[in-house]
Amino acid sequence: MRHTISIHLQNEAGALTRVAGMFSSRGYNIESLQVAPTQDHTVSRLTLVTIGSDDVIHQICSQLLKLVDVVSLVDMTHGKHIERELALVKLRRRPENAGAFTALLDEYGARLLDEGKHYRTLELAGSTENIDRCIDALASHGDIVSVVRSGAMAISRGSVSQ
Amino acid sequence: MRHTISIHLQNEAGALTRVAGMFSSRGYNIESLQVAPTQDHTVSRLTLVTIGSDDVIHQICSQLLKLVDVVSLVDMTHGKHIERELALVKLRRRPENAGAFTALLDEYGARLLDEGKHYRTLELAGSTENIDRCIDALASHGDIVSVVRSGAMAISRGSVSQ
Repeated sequence: MRHTISIHLQNEAGALTRVAGMFSSRGYNIESLQVAPTQDHTVSRLTLVTIGSDDVIHQICSQLLKLVDVVSLVDMTHGKHIERELALVKLRRRPENAGAFTALLDEYGARLLDEGKHYRTLELAGSTENIDRCIDALASHGDIVSVVRSGAMAISRGSVSQ
Repeated sequence: MRHTISIHLQNEAGALTRVAGMFSSRGYNIESLQVAPTQDHTVSRLTLVTIGSDDVIHQICSQLLKLVDVVSLVDMTHGKHIERELALVKLRRRPENAGAFTALLDEYGARLLDEGKHYRTLELAGSTENIDRCIDALASHGDIVSVVRSGAMAISRGSVSQ
């Protein structure tokens, strides 16, 4: 029921609005989405995660492929692929938990980006599940002030180009 | 002229369409955007990068703040902040360049995610400028098959909560 969809999109004003509108017009929420330039300056790549009926998502994908802005579309869920995500997390410091905090950084391969007397900001790359777990653990070692997540980004396994 | 805007958005079907539509209706392109859940299950956080006149972007931000879905909006460009990005890159292997490739991985702190006889997929977290540089360098050590980038994600420096 969770689908990760990868789309190559022409860089046209309104292209993202048309893609997002195809989901919202059916009452479907986009769980996460990111879009950014590729090596081809006329094309961006977008990954979105949505949860819903396989049939409806298949219909939405068919409609998306008819948009002139959509160069290609792959439902990554149907093939072997890797999903990774980046999170930036700002925490209030609790000095009494410094040791446990450092152990957590090592365990999850997190990187400290910014630090002051009362806060810390760190960066974490990993699977969505791992980031969820790390944020839960961090929450128990300090108060979370803010979280910025990329949402799942997908790339196919093997030599396939998508 | 480059603005990085951070928005907290209600999780409503159509919220992303309305935000993206505010830019496209003025002919403004969104360079990159990502949106994903926060610790509050009713709210997602979105970072978008757009390039254009300060005046027009200020107008768009004022209009966005009037949308019922927009909980808060900050133009991060006006304050001290950190921008980070994640990239997944798949390359064709060139065995003769193996040494230079390993040196590049170390230099940019890239992580190998998947590897076969004819390809490699790696993950790279860093500033947009660093990722640009690393991708350019990788392109000279193998043919790039595909690139997935998150676009710039922004978090304020210091203890500010945005």
